[in-house]
Amino acid sequence: MARVSQEHLDARRRQILDGAAVCFARNGFHATSMQDVLREVDLSAGAVYRYFSGKEELIAAIVGEVLQTVREMYEAAAAESPPPMPDELIPWVLGRMRTVRPGAVDGEWMFPRLMLQVWTETLRSPHLAGLLRPAYEDVRASWVLVVERYKEAGVMPEDADADAMARVMIAVVQGMATQMALFGTGSEDLLRTGLRALMSVGRPG
Amino acid sequence: MARVSQEHLDARRRQILDGAAVCFARNGFHATSMQDVLREVDLSAGAVYRYFSGKEELIAAIVGEVLQTVREMYEAAAAESPPPMPDELIPWVLGRMRTVRPGAVDGEWMFPRLMLQVWTETLRSPHLAGLLRPAYEDVRASWVLVVERYKEAGVMPEDADADAMARVMIAVVQGMATQMALFGTGSEDLLRTGLRALMSVGRPG
Repeated sequence: MARVSQEHLDARRRQILDGAAVCFARNGFHATSMQDVLREVDLSAGAVYRYFSGKEELIAAIVGEVLQTVREMYEAAAAESPPPMPDELIPWVLGRMRTVRPGAVDGEWMFPRLMLQVWTETLRSPHLAGLLRPAYEDVRASWVLVVERYKEAGVMPEDADADAMARVMIAVVQGMATQMALFGTGSEDLLRTGLRALMSVGRPG
Repeated sequence: MARVSQEHLDARRRQILDGAAVCFARNGFHATSMQDVLREVDLSAGAVYRYFSGKEELIAAIVGEVLQTVREMYEAAAAESPPPMPDELIPWVLGRMRTVRPGAVDGEWMFPRLMLQVWTETLRSPHLAGLLRPAYEDVRASWVLVVERYKEAGVMPEDADADAMARVMIAVVQGMATQMALFGTGSEDLLRTGLRALMSVGRPG
């Protein structure tokens, strides 16, 4: 039997996850069958089941990867002193996700739709909620690192609540993704100018 | 035939909408039948269909009411000079919604769950998206009024992007609702301290 390179295995895994993500973004988790995924990625059942036992494992892998990628980006930002300000950092992270996961549904970037579909499935599945929660906490922790670096660099007050700020920063991305998914409005530029405006309140110029 | 007072009709309508909202929040739009709604509100089919032709009309009425209430709150804020700052105003609006629509599912405030379920249904239904879009644009316009008032009162720069800021402010609420629905974490207090921290970036104290 021919040996298969790790590179080939990784590329195949990537192909399956990207195809499944498009399926879930398009129709939601419940309305998507493994048959739909096989058709989307154009592989045999045997080829796909070699990597993933079913839809649950697919969605867990997709979400886990995304949250890990986001976490790493904030950790990289926290290594700078000071890190980029929120009005630069948040749009940069969203823009990077657009590059790393460019899949489209109906001509629109599929990622915001995927987020909403994952949330709905999370409401339904305590199992998925259990998987998501620690990964989400990791993202929050990486944002806390960024805030601590702002403080060290003296660009914000020492007594500001880093945890609450981390949650609000994550909320901004979640909410902007919601607007993008529902109405096709919203972009990195909008995030940048909107955050800049918010951060200017109390500073009349 | 006995004449029924307007007050009675309004109370009945309220009862139906609140019961339907709890059903949608609990199980989502698709998994909820009109039978579920009848059971929840403890009324006959005749009594309910007198007000609403079906699930579509119910969800449109629920969402329309909520967005109108939110819009009115921001318009009231815009009548003050200056309006409350974002870190006070946004938690106040969320807290008011908690008072006005207190329904619970599994011991948790049902409102954040309802928002997520509505979004998912909106992805599926161009009809609902069409209904939601103008109501959402009205909320955004009311936030723009608030921002214009901040500028008039001299608490932020004239050239800040009011529209982008409005969208980010709405995103903060949407995202915090998402965290509340998914993980039961998030509150008005968290919003307040998180926004305050964000607005302090660049102001080392």
